[in-house]
Amino acid sequence: MDTTEDELLAAIVRLLADEAPDVIVGVGDDAAVVRPGGGDLVLTTDALVEGSHFVRADSAPRDLGYRAIVVNVSDIAAMAASPRYALAALTLPDDVDRAYVTELIGGMRDACHEYGCLLVGGNLARGRDLTFAVTLTGEVAAGRAVTRAGARIGDALVVTGELGASAAARRVRDDPSGWSDDDRAALRRAERPTARVGEGGILARYGATAMIDVSDGLALDLTRICRASGVGARLVLGDVPVAASATLDEAVGGGEDYELLATLPPDAVDGASAELAEVFAVALVRVGAIIEGGIVGVDADGTETPLEPEGWDHFR
Amino acid sequence: MDTTEDELLAAIVRLLADEAPDVIVGVGDDAAVVRPGGGDLVLTTDALVEGSHFVRADSAPRDLGYRAIVVNVSDIAAMAASPRYALAALTLPDDVDRAYVTELIGGMRDACHEYGCLLVGGNLARGRDLTFAVTLTGEVAAGRAVTRAGARIGDALVVTGELGASAAARRVRDDPSGWSDDDRAALRRAERPTARVGEGGILARYGATAMIDVSDGLALDLTRICRASGVGARLVLGDVPVAASATLDEAVGGGEDYELLATLPPDAVDGASAELAEVFAVALVRVGAIIEGGIVGVDADGTETPLEPEGWDHFR
Repeated sequence: MDTTEDELLAAIVRLLADEAPDVIVGVGDDAAVVRPGGGDLVLTTDALVEGSHFVRADSAPRDLGYRAIVVNVSDIAAMAASPRYALAALTLPDDVDRAYVTELIGGMRDACHEYGCLLVGGNLARGRDLTFAVTLTGEVAAGRAVTRAGARIGDALVVTGELGASAAARRVRDDPSGWSDDDRAALRRAERPTARVGEGGILARYGATAMIDVSDGLALDLTRICRASGVGARLVLGDVPVAASATLDEAVGGGEDYELLATLPPDAVDGASAELAEVFAVALVRVGAIIEGGIVGVDADGTETPLEPEGWDHFR
Repeated sequence: MDTTEDELLAAIVRLLADEAPDVIVGVGDDAAVVRPGGGDLVLTTDALVEGSHFVRADSAPRDLGYRAIVVNVSDIAAMAASPRYALAALTLPDDVDRAYVTELIGGMRDACHEYGCLLVGGNLARGRDLTFAVTLTGEVAAGRAVTRAGARIGDALVVTGELGASAAARRVRDDPSGWSDDDRAALRRAERPTARVGEGGILARYGATAMIDVSDGLALDLTRICRASGVGARLVLGDVPVAASATLDEAVGGGEDYELLATLPPDAVDGASAELAEVFAVALVRVGAIIEGGIVGVDADGTETPLEPEGWDHFR
């Protein structure tokens, strides 16, 4: 590192000198102090670790910073809440310089601006793996947070957008000579994913009974909803929205899509779908239903097979 | 790792199944949901990284978990706030097993119980360095947060407890044959430090104009108060409360003491000192004063020398 901790902090403080009426103490003191809104407080933390979530040489620091915020925004969105304040605990190896860190923080700030939240604090430490542990607060402005635990028998299973692009990006990343336009779009989306904040709010208004963001793969995240809710599910494989460059396996088993998987009363699907299309130009697709018992995938000729919760388990 | 991420999470959820009326959604969903109190929200994050902040073989996982919470509680205390909700982002190497992680979480829970806060969420990732990035929220129940920036010319400079024990512990750690009783006490305190939450509240009530916790060494943390407040300071070296096993250099330049360094109106020192002694049996010692200009140390014969901000800078 070509700088002391205090010099690097001073540079970061200058970078984050946004004025905001509800921030009483921002970056640079022992802790940040903010004036909360009236709703319930939502808290989440998620880390990107070099070697596990990214390869340093493959990503610009600005994209990594952006992504470290968005993966957390996605968790807030999955509760039907809005992001408010972010903290970033950075672990920096010796060979990362000050310019790299300011680019990284710049990417975090970009994402915060885009999603209407503020980076108000953080921590710097030294270690071998470049790591960004981001914590994000959110607020449930009206109504209630939507958990994973409320799915009911008979609910429709719906998903926003398309799945599998990140898994496809991981597959094609190392062979640029063969990239199609769809591959390039998938790679770009993997670097700068989109969190579905407004979409989560609309799904909550249409009565979503359970919701999760698809960060570890459709099959695994569906298993989590079913386990938390004590129900089963029927996933119609032919209805899963597969991203242009991806395969069905990548759409079902891949991860890091950051789309929302939700359960809705069946008669609410058309309304929610129309509003998502109109407000955000985002598709909402019915991919199955909540049933009693296990979790099955249904193929084109109607054969039901138990769904293996393949997903992005970093411990396997 | 001898377990999948979901199995490990399930074990952690069982461990943290505390009931609390203000926790609406605890560990195990996309995010935690809590009902905030009425005061301002305080947010801090601090990480312990293997190799930088601890050596794995030297510490029990229960102590490390405890310490990871306390270093954050100390930052909340330094704002004159009370800790409320904790999140822990863990990075786990391959050779850490499930028993180690549950011990670690157990230590976090112990510290949370002791300081009246709750561990409501977290994240698990894989990496080479065992890392615990903890985020803690706090609440300023009455009055205002005390920052680093309010010190005024003429204020008294005060510090709680004794300094240098952690530096002394680092010095003697590798030679158990020579440990005195004081060394053993210093080692124990380094493993299970104490945060000064109630003390911070009392200092705020007596009109503390600036406050910081001594995490990076008295000299460096005093420099931070002076820089943030635009003032200088006169530190009377003979008045610095040196822990039994430590040297003056360790008390001034060492780190990880987690005592509070504050500036007070001079006529408030006696009252604050008496109340800290009575309520917490903790000494409050006047170690100097806020002045114009630079930061100087004053030795026994009155000689003033510019104070070098030696401290625990992890980037040096």
